[in-house]
Amino acid sequence: MDETTPAEKAAALSAGQKETARVEAFSDGVFAIAITLLVIDLLPLSTRGGDVWDEVSASWPTFVAFVISFFTILVIWLNHHQMFTYIQKVDRNFLILNGVLLLVTTFVPFPTALVAQHILDPKPGSATAAAAIYAATGLGLAAGFRMVWRYAAKNRRLIAATVPDAELAPDAGAWLGPLGYSAAFVMAFIFPIATIVICGALAVFFAKSA
Amino acid sequence: MDETTPAEKAAALSAGQKETARVEAFSDGVFAIAITLLVIDLLPLSTRGGDVWDEVSASWPTFVAFVISFFTILVIWLNHHQMFTYIQKVDRNFLILNGVLLLVTTFVPFPTALVAQHILDPKPGSATAAAAIYAATGLGLAAGFRMVWRYAAKNRRLIAATVPDAELAPDAGAWLGPLGYSAAFVMAFIFPIATIVICGALAVFFAKSA
Amino acid sequence: MDETTPAEKAAALSAGQKETARVEAFSDGVFAIAITLLVIDLLPLSTRGGDVWDEVSASWPTFVAFVISFFTILVIWLNHHQMFTYIQKVDRNFLILNGVLLLVTTFVPFPTALVAQHILDPKPGSATAAAAIYAATGLGLAAGFRMVWRYAAKNRRLIAATVPDAELAPDAGAWLGPLGYSAAFVMAFIFPIATIVICGALAVFFAKSA
Amino acid sequence: MDETTPAEKAAALSAGQKETARVEAFSDGVFAIAITLLVIDLLPLSTRGGDVWDEVSASWPTFVAFVISFFTILVIWLNHHQMFTYIQKVDRNFLILNGVLLLVTTFVPFPTALVAQHILDPKPGSATAAAAIYAATGLGLAAGFRMVWRYAAKNRRLIAATVPDAELAPDAGAWLGPLGYSAAFVMAFIFPIATIVICGALAVFFAKSA
Repeated sequence: MDETTPAEKAAALSAGQKETARVEAFSDGVFAIAITLLVIDLLPLSTRGGDVWDEVSASWPTFVAFVISFFTILVIWLNHHQMFTYIQKVDRNFLILNGVLLLVTTFVPFPTALVAQHILDPKPGSATAAAAIYAATGLGLAAGFRMVWRYAAKNRRLIAATVPDAELAPDAGAWLGPLGYSAAFVMAFIFPIATIVICGALAVFFAKSA
Repeated sequence: MDETTPAEKAAALSAGQKETARVEAFSDGVFAIAITLLVIDLLPLSTRGGDVWDEVSASWPTFVAFVISFFTILVIWLNHHQMFTYIQKVDRNFLILNGVLLLVTTFVPFPTALVAQHILDPKPGSATAAAAIYAATGLGLAAGFRMVWRYAAKNRRLIAATVPDAELAPDAGAWLGPLGYSAAFVMAFIFPIATIVICGALAVFFAKSA
Repeated sequence: MDETTPAEKAAALSAGQKETARVEAFSDGVFAIAITLLVIDLLPLSTRGGDVWDEVSASWPTFVAFVISFFTILVIWLNHHQMFTYIQKVDRNFLILNGVLLLVTTFVPFPTALVAQHILDPKPGSATAAAAIYAATGLGLAAGFRMVWRYAAKNRRLIAATVPDAELAPDAGAWLGPLGYSAAFVMAFIFPIATIVICGALAVFFAKSA
Repeated sequence: MDETTPAEKAAALSAGQKETARVEAFSDGVFAIAITLLVIDLLPLSTRGGDVWDEVSASWPTFVAFVISFFTILVIWLNHHQMFTYIQKVDRNFLILNGVLLLVTTFVPFPTALVAQHILDPKPGSATAAAAIYAATGLGLAAGFRMVWRYAAKNRRLIAATVPDAELAPDAGAWLGPLGYSAAFVMAFIFPIATIVICGALAVFFAKSA
């Protein structure tokens, strides 16, 4: 490495940036599609037999879940986007970890549908199961993002030289996500509605400050 | 700020442009997906049991709603696109407001499906509810777009220095959207078909002139 | 216009190219999503109650329609892509015409589902209706593309100065599309399977030569 | 060709790179959408009538198939991405071959749904049919990718001059894909679960090393 000429270094840097840009673009595509697919959870409402306004107003959990999941994915996108302003190259391990984060992101419409259908379900256990799976998905997103970021930032592995060390130190929010979603998970077994309230509060908090 | 060197200013400007380009690309992705997902509202028509031509021709409101929603999203994309030719940087508040606009955009296939299914529904109230929700969504798009643009243009907050002030003054169309969709909303309680006619006329008008 | 300086001309040209690139990227997004959404037409097959192999093999028209529609959209994308190598700017009318072409493109999964479900339908008229709507959509794509291209090429309205006139002359293929899909439309009323064969042959022909 | 000036060569190279970049972007869009659409296979689970946790845990094959297909598409994207770092131009045949690869990619949600629904199906033959179709799709992806790459690399047809010959030699993995999926296909007729295990192992192996 020490014997690479400046021209070789510049070429490698440029190739690294192109590679990084493509990973970012692919990830952005997945975020944009996952966030837009959430509406599919709403469509079955349109074909029910009853009075439209009664059906829609009785289905308020569906809309609440739609909005919370929308902002949850939006926040992950914002953070992912922020992360890529620090990263100047990617490697195979980073691509796999990023792939795991994208896997959890594409999964989000499913727990959203579960909550929409079952948070008011009178069957014992169904609301709890739906809320627990929803909170676990949020936890997966938060933990997945932490994992990707720790991998990139460890010893400045993939970080551009121009980024000051202070930017890489974990802030308070770094732990709030995993802790908050863990609390939401526990609440699913006590009072499932509280799980949804916590997940909504986390999305609002991170949208404003993350 | 006064002590930044020209080189620092240029670097900040360039980073701002990259950031802006990525927000634009993500928004474009959401617009492109939402506009293409509208076809999902049509698919159940293909599996009904009756004669194909009878089913299709009896479902004309489905196709009308599909076309109007398509052009409504296309117009929002055109305006969003125009806005980004003026904007040179983004900030956190802008990202959240833009996120709200995208939320309403991804929601569009749902009211479109409601109108498709219920605008001819004989049940009292169902056509009104469908049309009212459709018009409210259009109002949300128009108001959401105004809100994003006002935030960016206020005191030239995010506007490039090269854009003349005259370009930023609100034109007549700025109020036509909110007013037109409000009228469409009111009509839902009187004659729901008129709601759809007004929404269609607004889409055509804005496509040609916005 | 005559008094614009070379620098102003260069800036306008560059802005025009950025605008053009964004329209191209948005259109590409719609093509990519429409082509990928075709698979949704296949999914109901997976939940039928019978023997899997019997269900799948009895549903061969579904797969044939999927493949033909895939290549039909791919060909439109290839041609659209080719067109944009000649275009250096866009205007409002072009955006609307291009929007109409995208509208027909996003519609494709619906006639594909009709053909998949009904091309073997014993009910009199159903196969005819499905095939006729399918051919009409192909005709809409071919005519829509011709319309967009004629608008751009008329008097070199939106064409880059470096493109030789010879490239702009309509070739034989320009009329084959509208004529071929018209023939496919007529065949729907005589022998609907022939409609599908013609549409498939057109997609193969254009993929190889257009 | 020998008489082109250096400036003409540079212009052709640049046009070739723009063309190549657009094919890559379109393909990336299709990969991103196909990988995100996999979640649609999960959504029917959310509306079943029974206890949520019982329904979800009884449907574990659905989640296994979702994860394996996700990583299978991710690996194809990684390889496709790698291939494009070597390619500097595209031609019509390449576009068609690449189109075939994208066709198989967009098809993936269908065999995934078949496996999810039928791998535990007690009807004789249904699990075999689902697993065989799933393995055949994996084989199609692997063979399709090989075909695209062979076409590009043959006599360095589309390869950039800066890529050393050694990079173009097929490695061990080149045959592992076709062989592995063929073995998975054969197993479908003996012990269908083994098909899924092999497909999962191939995805993990290629994610780590391909």
